[in-house]
Amino acid sequence: MNIAIELPEKASRDLLRSLHRQLRAAIVDGRLKAGVRLPPTRALAKALGISRNTAIAAYDLLLSEGYVEARGGAGTYVIDLRPRLTRPKAPPPDPEADTRLASQWRGWRPVKEFCSDQVFRYDFIAGVPSMAFPFDIWQRLSTRAARQVARRKVQERDPAGEYSLREAIANHVSFVRAVACTPDDIVVTGGARQAIDLIARILVTPGQTEAAIEDPGYGPTRRSLEIAGAIIRATPVDAEGLVVERLPPSARIVCVTPSHQFPLGVVMSAARRRALLDFAASFNAVIIEDDYDSEFRHDHQPLDALQTLDRAETVFYVGTFSKSMFPELRVGFVVVPRWARYALTLAKQLNDWHCPLITQLALADFIAEGHLARHVRRMRRIYSERHRALTEAIAHHFDDRLQLFPAHAGVHLAAGSDSLDDRRLVVKAEAKGIRVEDIARYAVRDIDQRGLVFGFGLIRAEDIEPAVKILARLA
Amino acid sequence: MNIAIELPEKASRDLLRSLHRQLRAAIVDGRLKAGVRLPPTRALAKALGISRNTAIAAYDLLLSEGYVEARGGAGTYVIDLRPRLTRPKAPPPDPEADTRLASQWRGWRPVKEFCSDQVFRYDFIAGVPSMAFPFDIWQRLSTRAARQVARRKVQERDPAGEYSLREAIANHVSFVRAVACTPDDIVVTGGARQAIDLIARILVTPGQTEAAIEDPGYGPTRRSLEIAGAIIRATPVDAEGLVVERLPPSARIVCVTPSHQFPLGVVMSAARRRALLDFAASFNAVIIEDDYDSEFRHDHQPLDALQTLDRAETVFYVGTFSKSMFPELRVGFVVVPRWARYALTLAKQLNDWHCPLITQLALADFIAEGHLARHVRRMRRIYSERHRALTEAIAHHFDDRLQLFPAHAGVHLAAGSDSLDDRRLVVKAEAKGIRVEDIARYAVRDIDQRGLVFGFGLIRAEDIEPAVKILARLA
Repeated sequence: MNIAIELPEKASRDLLRSLHRQLRAAIVDGRLKAGVRLPPTRALAKALGISRNTAIAAYDLLLSEGYVEARGGAGTYVIDLRPRLTRPKAPPPDPEADTRLASQWRGWRPVKEFCSDQVFRYDFIAGVPSMAFPFDIWQRLSTRAARQVARRKVQERDPAGEYSLREAIANHVSFVRAVACTPDDIVVTGGARQAIDLIARILVTPGQTEAAIEDPGYGPTRRSLEIAGAIIRATPVDAEGLVVERLPPSARIVCVTPSHQFPLGVVMSAARRRALLDFAASFNAVIIEDDYDSEFRHDHQPLDALQTLDRAETVFYVGTFSKSMFPELRVGFVVVPRWARYALTLAKQLNDWHCPLITQLALADFIAEGHLARHVRRMRRIYSERHRALTEAIAHHFDDRLQLFPAHAGVHLAAGSDSLDDRRLVVKAEAKGIRVEDIARYAVRDIDQRGLVFGFGLIRAEDIEPAVKILARLA
Repeated sequence: MNIAIELPEKASRDLLRSLHRQLRAAIVDGRLKAGVRLPPTRALAKALGISRNTAIAAYDLLLSEGYVEARGGAGTYVIDLRPRLTRPKAPPPDPEADTRLASQWRGWRPVKEFCSDQVFRYDFIAGVPSMAFPFDIWQRLSTRAARQVARRKVQERDPAGEYSLREAIANHVSFVRAVACTPDDIVVTGGARQAIDLIARILVTPGQTEAAIEDPGYGPTRRSLEIAGAIIRATPVDAEGLVVERLPPSARIVCVTPSHQFPLGVVMSAARRRALLDFAASFNAVIIEDDYDSEFRHDHQPLDALQTLDRAETVFYVGTFSKSMFPELRVGFVVVPRWARYALTLAKQLNDWHCPLITQLALADFIAEGHLARHVRRMRRIYSERHRALTEAIAHHFDDRLQLFPAHAGVHLAAGSDSLDDRRLVVKAEAKGIRVEDIARYAVRDIDQRGLVFGFGLIRAEDIEPAVKILARLA
């Protein structure tokens, strides 16, 4: 056995531990190869100048841990660990077929999102905000928060979120969105995604509950509902938002993005809003209002949240800091109807107990000290400029080949077309270093809605006109 | 209308926005009370020196948002928002009964955990580690991580976790627990709790899948399985850990804490480990190994993880940094069998996309730079000292009225008793400023297991003897 073993000059207790550890390490990292015969305990003891009992004890431990096997009188041999130590990087061909998985989880693969290390010359990816964020301020507040956490006595950590944060959020949404709520109405979540996932969990009875979603719409919302066992009812969207008249009366959940439809960008009209609230009230349905980027408003038409108009506690208002701050933060929240407060808080508690505390405390200060409002104001100016540049460039270069959907908020625009071969344009554009997506990418059914989605979170204002010009030439 | 309105000297566009905002704010915060009649638009325009059209437009917006109502020719009146603005703090009497909730979510309330701002003179709460943590180092690494995030180009954010973190975790567990894995086998989660919650989601077919749990055992694991729809099979625990012979062959999931049973603290014997792995292999069952605090070992008997001995990919190894660092961090991980890798990664993606990025990058460095290993070594010494003090104090003061369960790891001990009225002792102790829990608190069925659980994460070594002395007198 040609491996170096160094033992402490200590009590046999430490000797044994040390010897066992070193032997095991040698086996795990392959210095002791499979099939190698360990020296007889007597020989090992002599070589290392330790008692034979220590050597025997060490071998016994390796034996009980399954690293070596005793072949009768033939001695002690290293077991072949390779099958486990050198696992192939890729999963086996068809892991999803394994019957140990609950059936609804078979045959799925994780979805690639923003999956491109490729840097684009012009990037119109939608749903990704600018990374211009005051990280220095954020870290200063985080450091302060860490000190608070360090000083804390053990106490209840509320799954719904730290009270100071819920207070700050309640003030924030009351002010910017006229959403009427108290801290007790709020549950802090790991982004809007966890919010919708947990809401789906508490509302959906698998195989029974029907959920209406916007078509085209936001993929992850659909998938969370599907995996929760909901029956999906794709409902069309037009220039006034979700076509409420087309809602199946059997729908018990309605998911909407009324302030800035994803991906079309349209604002739901006041009439449709009232109709939707009436629908929910009369059919005892629930509305999930995903208000993901409405802080960035580009004109004077601030239609209020459904939650603000709701009189029957039918609306779950979902907000996020992914767009107003940065997505990697993973914090969002729900303004919960009272009847669902316990259930949603419990769902959060069972899912991951609560959001990371340092983040919660830092965010509470970030909002309370006005940093969020300042940052949103600043970004609104930047996004409005890009919004304008994009609107003008498309009108100018595409003429009537692309019709912009009216959008007054947020970080993306969409444009429809009857003539355009959008798929082909997307591919040709990528070859020219331009990333832009076609509307159909967000379709639930095979909708004939043709057109493109232009995100402007990443592209600079001055780059927009040149990029659109190239696109128009490619079209 | 006696509210101050200040308007900018700007284009009518800004005038309208400003006027509408101020009126709405006045209504929301109650300066304009319900039922108040707004001045006629002509009068308002005159008073503010603006065009009448601007006043009309502002009223129209308030109308469309539902803040005011037009009473025929009688004018415009403020609507009563109070029912929504002054929601009672407490939820209505029986919110869980609401039929809009999926049935399995009705009748539940969030569970209070560590719910006590009351500071105890002597605190033996279990499952709570010491808060002695190098937060200064942590914040330094977080600040560096924030800079990395700020510099990032948009790219795929892997739901399974940042590769650098999974690499660090893989090396860490291979070293301290001889768990053989590559970064690709790891999914980073929001604590062990989210790990178990997501595993339950992908394995449980509601109403069908039977899950065996330790009795007594860890409550949240049981609740996550229940809410996922599993049929719970409580299985007894003795001094050798889970009594494998008592497992119902119909169990398809077996949850265990083999390194340090919660709450009894016993180590699962090598024989039982082999038996459990055989059980899983022969019945095509899955083992969830919750290895929550085994880094803190108090003797030379390092029994390896079940995952290390597993040859059939039946084990989900769940680790956490809640005990080795601090619980408010909310980071844990799973070493996933390859056949479940896609499903678990997708479950994480649908649930909350990924863990906060700054935390992930900071943790990767914290581990890679050896800070974790150092901290664990330091805490192991501290906990071992408390472990010894507790063992001696109980033996000395309780004689044979309490028999300690053999425990070689972790941050708590348990002691059984035939004679002791443990419930009564717990209550009497609290009155004397001592927090200690009885084993029955963790029972799933009505087990007759009497005794106490002594956590030593919070109590200092020198306080242990005096505290136990008082307890013994109260007993």
